[in-house]
Amino acid sequence: MTLKVSDIGEKELIKYIIANSKSITPDDTAITQLNDTNLISTCDMLIQSRHFPKGMSYYDMGFKSVTVNVSDLAAMGAEPLGFLLSIAIPKNLEIDDFKQIIAGVLDACDFYEIPLIGGDTNEASEIIINGTALGLTDKPLMKDTYQIGDLICVTGDIGLAALGFELDVLDNIYVKRALKPEARIREGLILRDYATSATDITDGLASELYTIKKDGFGFMIHEEMFDVSDEYKRIAGELELDYLDLMLHVGEDFELLFTISKENLGKLTIDCKVIGEVTDSDVVELTLENGFVERIENRGYEHYVSE
Amino acid sequence: MTLKVSDIGEKELIKYIIANSKSITPDDTAITQLNDTNLISTCDMLIQSRHFPKGMSYYDMGFKSVTVNVSDLAAMGAEPLGFLLSIAIPKNLEIDDFKQIIAGVLDACDFYEIPLIGGDTNEASEIIINGTALGLTDKPLMKDTYQIGDLICVTGDIGLAALGFELDVLDNIYVKRALKPEARIREGLILRDYATSATDITDGLASELYTIKKDGFGFMIHEEMFDVSDEYKRIAGELELDYLDLMLHVGEDFELLFTISKENLGKLTIDCKVIGEVTDSDVVELTLENGFVERIENRGYEHYVSE
Repeated sequence: MTLKVSDIGEKELIKYIIANSKSITPDDTAITQLNDTNLISTCDMLIQSRHFPKGMSYYDMGFKSVTVNVSDLAAMGAEPLGFLLSIAIPKNLEIDDFKQIIAGVLDACDFYEIPLIGGDTNEASEIIINGTALGLTDKPLMKDTYQIGDLICVTGDIGLAALGFELDVLDNIYVKRALKPEARIREGLILRDYATSATDITDGLASELYTIKKDGFGFMIHEEMFDVSDEYKRIAGELELDYLDLMLHVGEDFELLFTISKENLGKLTIDCKVIGEVTDSDVVELTLENGFVERIENRGYEHYVSE
Repeated sequence: MTLKVSDIGEKELIKYIIANSKSITPDDTAITQLNDTNLISTCDMLIQSRHFPKGMSYYDMGFKSVTVNVSDLAAMGAEPLGFLLSIAIPKNLEIDDFKQIIAGVLDACDFYEIPLIGGDTNEASEIIINGTALGLTDKPLMKDTYQIGDLICVTGDIGLAALGFELDVLDNIYVKRALKPEARIREGLILRDYATSATDITDGLASELYTIKKDGFGFMIHEEMFDVSDEYKRIAGELELDYLDLMLHVGEDFELLFTISKENLGKLTIDCKVIGEVTDSDVVELTLENGFVERIENRGYEHYVSE
């Protein structure tokens, strides 16, 4: 039998490329030493049918294509240097819609203070946007440099986008987060001086925890520390969705997941929430509100894939 | 009537983006000053149905995706620093074919001495490869910094790929150039110290000449300086194609088009050919072998577009 790409999945493809290249850093971005600093570079391709939910405006598509890339700079504690935009669009797209995409890109570049410095345009059967973000940092913030006893934190509420993807009413914080997430670039720059590690949450908290896990280290997460609102639980319930599943396994929040020593936590000047600690258990666990402890599954969400 | 993208064309889209961004250098690549050097960055998206001719192997697709980007570094006289690969593939692609694409990318990175430092994988209905090439140069080689009286040169034979696209027999120099072009990275590094301007030939000599043209400056190209072989003329004739049309309006050779002062020409240690000179005529002209002079049309070739 001939093996197809669909038989092994995207993560295996990435593993194959990394295993065959001598130069890839297995972190949120590439790191290239340059005299007394480090060039940080990252690229992400967004494809309309996979990455843009149905209600998303052309403007928000443009904005998001910058956010997903800048979020990787944030996770490295890098200062934005420049953004490159490769965009392919169908030839029957209306010019005004194209201009809306570009307006979203340019407004996002202003918002994150990253100049749009170059790019490429093309024709394709659907909208495809590949962004490349470049940044600089003296001290890259890696994703697996934590120690046992470090606290595990997130920069804001997680799971908002996950719930937003399920809602039809547009005017609420959940849908806003789903359609126009914001990268935590300012927070990343502050964390660089205090955190022991960081990554951004794109595929869900569970998936990111398994991505950063090292042999011999474990994570204990506490449900009560999520501080889930009654409203969140109620809406999830009405949709017959498990709210913990939304919070752990969906993602797309673009919050930062970071670790920090107990001593440094008090020095932080950013909004953040402690959700657990690094242990020596070698497993990824959750203490539920009722006191029970269960393993967190290694399962992320593949967005908008039409199978 | 609502304007569609197909009504205005790709070049107008690029013009729109450049006009609305404060930070884009209208040259072959972006240029970002970094202490005592310049970071050169560029990205190009290749789409299977548009950019890869039918006979092209998966390996050659991977190789070409590096070449088109490195060629832009060459045109700036930049030393390669790193390459990022965003690749989207159909889920029914065979794993062995995917591995062939990656082998082509990795071999090209070795060939150009540019490390593969990062990337992204995705699923799409056809193969889409977006490469980002990063480089450094103390002295960026711009495309329009020539003076009247400068000689116009190319680094090799142009039009080989153009003829290759038309041939079914694979084992000849034309098809080889069409399927596996090579970027002139070594030549670009030498030209940086001697040339007055440079760009790479992707859309055809004519199109590039119009791209670099400044008001008040003109170009006179001499057919006899092309040194067209009898074989080239014969094969084009058998295919009922105009050989001059192939040489001027197709491209995809990835040779460098550069200008140089008469004094500096003798100092060059690379294979190259003088094909004309910069004039004050304000037009782009060709002196034919028979002595007649005609205007060169501003017309490039859109490859593999199925209209």
